[in-house]
Amino acid sequence: MAGQIDAKLAEIGLSLPAPMPPIANYVPYAVSGKLVAVSGQVPAIDGRIGWTGKVGGTVSVEEGQAAARQCLVNVLGHLKAACGGDLDRVVRVVRLGGFIAAAPEFTAHAQVMNGASDLAVAVFGDAGRHARTTIGVPSLPADAAVEVEGLFEID
Amino acid sequence: MAGQIDAKLAEIGLSLPAPMPPIANYVPYAVSGKLVAVSGQVPAIDGRIGWTGKVGGTVSVEEGQAAARQCLVNVLGHLKAACGGDLDRVVRVVRLGGFIAAAPEFTAHAQVMNGASDLAVAVFGDAGRHARTTIGVPSLPADAAVEVEGLFEID
Amino acid sequence: MAGQIDAKLAEIGLSLPAPMPPIANYVPYAVSGKLVAVSGQVPAIDGRIGWTGKVGGTVSVEEGQAAARQCLVNVLGHLKAACGGDLDRVVRVVRLGGFIAAAPEFTAHAQVMNGASDLAVAVFGDAGRHARTTIGVPSLPADAAVEVEGLFEID
Repeated sequence: MAGQIDAKLAEIGLSLPAPMPPIANYVPYAVSGKLVAVSGQVPAIDGRIGWTGKVGGTVSVEEGQAAARQCLVNVLGHLKAACGGDLDRVVRVVRLGGFIAAAPEFTAHAQVMNGASDLAVAVFGDAGRHARTTIGVPSLPADAAVEVEGLFEID
Repeated sequence: MAGQIDAKLAEIGLSLPAPMPPIANYVPYAVSGKLVAVSGQVPAIDGRIGWTGKVGGTVSVEEGQAAARQCLVNVLGHLKAACGGDLDRVVRVVRLGGFIAAAPEFTAHAQVMNGASDLAVAVFGDAGRHARTTIGVPSLPADAAVEVEGLFEID
Repeated sequence: MAGQIDAKLAEIGLSLPAPMPPIANYVPYAVSGKLVAVSGQVPAIDGRIGWTGKVGGTVSVEEGQAAARQCLVNVLGHLKAACGGDLDRVVRVVRLGGFIAAAPEFTAHAQVMNGASDLAVAVFGDAGRHARTTIGVPSLPADAAVEVEGLFEID
């Protein structure tokens, strides 16, 4: 039986990826009590990073938003695994951390990160409204343009 | 009846701002159990960012400290809302994250972030002693010179 | 009586440092419930930072890995204090945050951070498998090449 969140994902035409293994010696998520910490995700699609380079440079703000959205798609894929497949167990998106690869003069970080935040609210509704910290970075693993991590409460 | 922390704020001449709405699709704080995650705050004063540019560049270390302090003022404004107005419910400042917009050769991040840490201890005493992570960043949302996020335990 | 983790540390020839005091107005760790947040640690050895500069610049990837490992050694020193000296109380390494001082064209962040992650797994086994977020930064406090913070569950 598909859950409510699965139905919402279907409604917005989003299928979560089978969780990809991390590219190094760590795990995609760790659970402590009701909290799930999901590792920082790059905007990989089918095992290849979809957006590389710097936002505001070779990557436009609109492309950066799409990258941030894809990062969150990958976060949610791992979160689903953390929930044993049942995303209806998600009580709250507590916090998202957004890292935007950008030059020193870039200022539109918030706009880029909205690609992730808007998806969180679209999928989880009020439970998707989260605290957020967004910063610029000079470089990310594998030249990713954006990286997003998440902290969730589940029951 | 003003609480003990309100009295301390009055003693040090600090009035917390009415919480400003986030500039994008997220919320200023999220509560999970006894933990409150407050979103990364820029050094806004009355809706305008008080310190822009890079610390060590056009922004001095002393100005950066003032900016970090103002970031924490804004964090505390949201924390107060998370506590239903009663800051005496704060059990512990668990962690502050400090992000200093700076050039690659900058090294005085800790000194800048003390502007926030010193205020936390001034307001909350021993309960204000926190774990802290401070890093340099090339750029921040809206060209802010400093950004500070917080994690708190309340009861 | 030495605990199991102490025995593992001895087996891999690692002695944890006496915890160094922070270089500013904060504390090395804060405990909230079963969670321990350890402040971001630089790769200090006997009070002096062992690796300064930028990874991929004057610091090689291999040196960066050694720096990341030393950061985690310092994290574990504080974690041991948080546990009252008994690292067997560590239930889980929940999350490590890795900050790699690097130029915009650097891409091997994950490889560098493995210096910390591999040690976590070597010391704690399955309980050492953690969520992780690794990013590049332009600069770190005191010109450190790497900084690592940790979140742990203890009982």
